[in-house]
Amino acid sequence: MVIKVRMADMFQPKFDAGGLLAAVVSHAETGALLMVAHMNAEAIAKTRATGRAHFWSRSRQALWLKGETSGHFLKVQQILVDCDQDCLWLKALPDGPACHTGAASCFFRLLTPEGLEPL
Amino acid sequence: MVIKVRMADMFQPKFDAGGLLAAVVSHAETGALLMVAHMNAEAIAKTRATGRAHFWSRSRQALWLKGETSGHFLKVQQILVDCDQDCLWLKALPDGPACHTGAASCFFRLLTPEGLEPL
Repeated sequence: MVIKVRMADMFQPKFDAGGLLAAVVSHAETGALLMVAHMNAEAIAKTRATGRAHFWSRSRQALWLKGETSGHFLKVQQILVDCDQDCLWLKALPDGPACHTGAASCFFRLLTPEGLEPL
Repeated sequence: MVIKVRMADMFQPKFDAGGLLAAVVSHAETGALLMVAHMNAEAIAKTRATGRAHFWSRSRQALWLKGETSGHFLKVQQILVDCDQDCLWLKALPDGPACHTGAASCFFRLLTPEGLEPL
């Protein structure tokens, strides 16, 4: 007798040479893309444990709890993983503007043949 | 007399040490995230010139016209640029599955406390 147990696929994130992968954050309700940042293993673990998005700041070379200083946390509703596990898609509810410029989304300019135009 | 001319902001993409930036592709109509890949200056230029998404394949180390072999081109409707110009958001209409696995989107699994579950 063979007992089959349905196992979830293993989560084995594929990090780059710097130990990072890209994380794309969209608004869980509107679907708008909010920001793209990077995560290391610790940032992923803390995000999963707390439900607040954590990243790795490449400029500061430090773990970064988004909203730690601004109060604009990203409350993570779902995390999706891509086919080769080198990218995460976080669906989140933002407590405020996601962009450090104060814009709701980091993607506030359109690329046209002439250059960048505000949306 | 000072004549003020409204100039579009300059597009000055900020590439990483490898000459790449991340490009996030979502479905122009449904808003679903389809895939995340990388672009170099040539991929950006060809995408703008042709309206078909081009990337840089890190595994093949070659310019990659998405759909070149599968026929599943990504028809780019809009390109948005993030605050620090190191990421592009392409809104596109896909001619077929965006994922090499045949899935409509590369993001077809949910990360749960147990592991990966199909959506």
